[in-house]
Amino acid sequence: MVKRAGGALLLSLELDRDADEPLSTQLRAALHKLLLSGDLQPGSRLPASRTLAQDLGVSRTTVIAAYDRLAAEGLIDCKVGAGSYVSDALSAKRPPRPSAGGASEALAARPPPRIARSVEQATAQFHERLPHQPRAFTTAMPAFDAFPLALWSRHVAKYWRTRSELVLGYGDPRGYWPLRRAIAAHLGANRGIACDPDQIFILGGAQEAFNLIGRILLEPGDKVWFENPGAIGARNSFVGSGAEMVPLPVDREGMAVAEGLRLSPDFRLAFVTPSHQQPLGVTMSLRRRFELLHAAEAADAWIVEDDYDGEFCYGEHPLRTLKSVDTDDRVIYVGTFSKTLFPALRLGYALVPPQLVSIFERVASAFLQGVPSSPQAVVADFMEQGHFAAHIRRMRKIYAERYRTLREAARQRLAGLLEVVPTETGLHTIGLLPDWATEEEVARWADRRRITVAPLERFCIAPIDRKGLVLGFSGVPPSAITAGVAILGEVLETLQEMRAERETSQIWR
Amino acid sequence: MVKRAGGALLLSLELDRDADEPLSTQLRAALHKLLLSGDLQPGSRLPASRTLAQDLGVSRTTVIAAYDRLAAEGLIDCKVGAGSYVSDALSAKRPPRPSAGGASEALAARPPPRIARSVEQATAQFHERLPHQPRAFTTAMPAFDAFPLALWSRHVAKYWRTRSELVLGYGDPRGYWPLRRAIAAHLGANRGIACDPDQIFILGGAQEAFNLIGRILLEPGDKVWFENPGAIGARNSFVGSGAEMVPLPVDREGMAVAEGLRLSPDFRLAFVTPSHQQPLGVTMSLRRRFELLHAAEAADAWIVEDDYDGEFCYGEHPLRTLKSVDTDDRVIYVGTFSKTLFPALRLGYALVPPQLVSIFERVASAFLQGVPSSPQAVVADFMEQGHFAAHIRRMRKIYAERYRTLREAARQRLAGLLEVVPTETGLHTIGLLPDWATEEEVARWADRRRITVAPLERFCIAPIDRKGLVLGFSGVPPSAITAGVAILGEVLETLQEMRAERETSQIWR
Repeated sequence: MVKRAGGALLLSLELDRDADEPLSTQLRAALHKLLLSGDLQPGSRLPASRTLAQDLGVSRTTVIAAYDRLAAEGLIDCKVGAGSYVSDALSAKRPPRPSAGGASEALAARPPPRIARSVEQATAQFHERLPHQPRAFTTAMPAFDAFPLALWSRHVAKYWRTRSELVLGYGDPRGYWPLRRAIAAHLGANRGIACDPDQIFILGGAQEAFNLIGRILLEPGDKVWFENPGAIGARNSFVGSGAEMVPLPVDREGMAVAEGLRLSPDFRLAFVTPSHQQPLGVTMSLRRRFELLHAAEAADAWIVEDDYDGEFCYGEHPLRTLKSVDTDDRVIYVGTFSKTLFPALRLGYALVPPQLVSIFERVASAFLQGVPSSPQAVVADFMEQGHFAAHIRRMRKIYAERYRTLREAARQRLAGLLEVVPTETGLHTIGLLPDWATEEEVARWADRRRITVAPLERFCIAPIDRKGLVLGFSGVPPSAITAGVAILGEVLETLQEMRAERETSQIWR
Repeated sequence: MVKRAGGALLLSLELDRDADEPLSTQLRAALHKLLLSGDLQPGSRLPASRTLAQDLGVSRTTVIAAYDRLAAEGLIDCKVGAGSYVSDALSAKRPPRPSAGGASEALAARPPPRIARSVEQATAQFHERLPHQPRAFTTAMPAFDAFPLALWSRHVAKYWRTRSELVLGYGDPRGYWPLRRAIAAHLGANRGIACDPDQIFILGGAQEAFNLIGRILLEPGDKVWFENPGAIGARNSFVGSGAEMVPLPVDREGMAVAEGLRLSPDFRLAFVTPSHQQPLGVTMSLRRRFELLHAAEAADAWIVEDDYDGEFCYGEHPLRTLKSVDTDDRVIYVGTFSKTLFPALRLGYALVPPQLVSIFERVASAFLQGVPSSPQAVVADFMEQGHFAAHIRRMRKIYAERYRTLREAARQRLAGLLEVVPTETGLHTIGLLPDWATEEEVARWADRRRITVAPLERFCIAPIDRKGLVLGFSGVPPSAITAGVAILGEVLETLQEMRAERETSQIWR
């Protein structure tokens, strides 16, 4: 420890007379840093305020103010008539680690921070979620241009006019009761699900539901049947719980249950998107649904149904949810308002089977504190007054139109370049690429032209035999879709020509 | 399997002609249930629509609508000119488990649901968090009566007038940048903490911060130094991570670090409330702070500083935060807006040391989706315009007055009954009970008189040698505090008399 206490050293304190901060604040901060640096011996005397004021060329009041503050914080002891001393409390502080360079070098030289092994292992498996730019063909983007913002704002304003105690206090960690009731009614009327509001837990979006489900139901090493390709965020949540993903192919009937039984009959959980497979867009067949339910029952496993965009169905009588045929209470149904209303709400829910209600309640009351009250109350109001159902009906038409625009533009412009696969549900479909193209190259070139196309590969845990792009059609108006298709056509043609040129030059070489 | 297909069985379908639901919907639901019950053999023929309509006394259109719907859902096959059949898909369904009684009996007879062992073990250790009723002497309740709701509502309304894309879309999972910046500025000016906004992660309240910290830093079996008595919610979060709590006594200088070193020198994390110990109200001494930092450095452990109500200090120059003297980057500082603004916001944050920023970012981008945008933006606005600082200054005066009211009323009314311990910070203090009293009995009797007093015991992991009640003084106006003290006095006197009578009768027995 360098003994530098005394008048001289304090000249090293630098004050900036042009700064906004008062000199006494600057002096306090500089002394604070010096005291914590460990360079001053506890018990050693500080210069008298008069001396320091002279040395630094500041008023004595400035120095006294800084000393007073440091004394109040316990860093120095002021003994009346006997001067100020470096506090003995600082002797409990360990001497600073030797460091040749600056702070950043010292940081770089430190061993890596100690974190939980499970998280360390999980981070290697995390997949990057997709960005959400408001342009063609970003996925999972509602039509913000068609959102009834004025109506919404009126409901928000009305909420803040209610009695303050009700709007300010702690809410139920399970969620706001009228919202849970409204969701149960909506699921009964629209998704074929009969349930009690007590089975519904309001959470900060579907992602929080996956986190919570992973935390409560999975332990390290548990096998999870996962669609391949499949949803990225849900997978990260389960991986984060230490579970082992079992990638199962998706065919025209949905998740290949038979393959799951072959690879891992002792699975603990299956994650599926039956209404509109994420990302392929397939609807799971009824037979396959029953096979999955049967397999879960045999293995005493859980099924998570992510109904992320199933509300938007353009066909006549779509297949209902998996939950609606779940007579054995195996399915945890996860819903979100990110697509039906908007993502910034951060509002979703898990509908759990009766036998799981009590454990979810215990966990919620132990260490969940629920989501903010105001969005919950406003959405409940919106639902009860019929605005929610009306909004979905309206958006269904808008999305159907945008989908038709994509299909028609693709038919005219992308023939032979990209095969856009028909869908009857949701906010996106996929386009299959010809053999010569590579997903990442197309995505990169498209991005330069300000078009977003997500390669299927980004959704994969294991390689698949299809090459394609995920095309969101919901977020931008028809004109932008048509323009986007034209650009995508140019990109694909350019790449095709480049490929042909390369091949020609190889032949002649 | 009972073979009941044919005309007759369908008479068992019950329709309610007085219900709001259309008959075709009722019929569809009843048939749906019957088909899923497994009682009908796949491939067997359903009655012709004309026959069923006659049997049920409904129009043929009603039956056709229901059949169409079920056919679309794949539950029945309609062959033109050949009638309708129970779908073969149902053969993939397992026969229903035999059940003698009703649904609830069947549920009760099931084996307990499979959940993660860690959660199963944790639930036994969960403590009940305290209720939040707006009455004397509920803890952790801001003065809702003094909240500037009109000003707040104007900021909310202004927010919803901004461009829709900005207010509706996905936000940064780490939090809204202007809010992180505003918090960093606030911490620098008011809590003595120099930090970069990138170190701040916005979360759904302090509780979510504890969950996330537990998840990232703790693994099953890790030792956590925990104040005893201590914060309930934080403890539940760490217990939920499978960590083992090491209860450490709290003396007049705060957590007994020496005892921690004796019991568990290999601790992984220490949880402390240095500004105002939860619940005892002690401020951790500077010497103790350095001892703790030193111990953490020696063990390569983390420290979580929960500064839940440290903003409300009534003294002249209070000791700053532990984080402000953390030169070794050991401390994760957790802040909340639940006390400074209001709990229904569900807004808090974790300030992590530089070496933990990247792992928190990776986890956030993998499976956090952030909190709603609107409260974040409104609070950022509130802070940047100075309303937040002004609000805290104003509330500090109000809470100081309420605290003085409690002290004075207690001095006059509770002498010899309850010793109210002085505090200089926060929203609550404690009252020490005389030997004859039992915490739970007083709390129960007080509750009957509509007064909330939380027994110290509820905050304990291991028994302590003090008996006392936690008294919140922030949530109700001075008049209610005085009235509450009077009632508490009556309760204590009554119990004292009862105790004396019991003892007298024992002597004479």
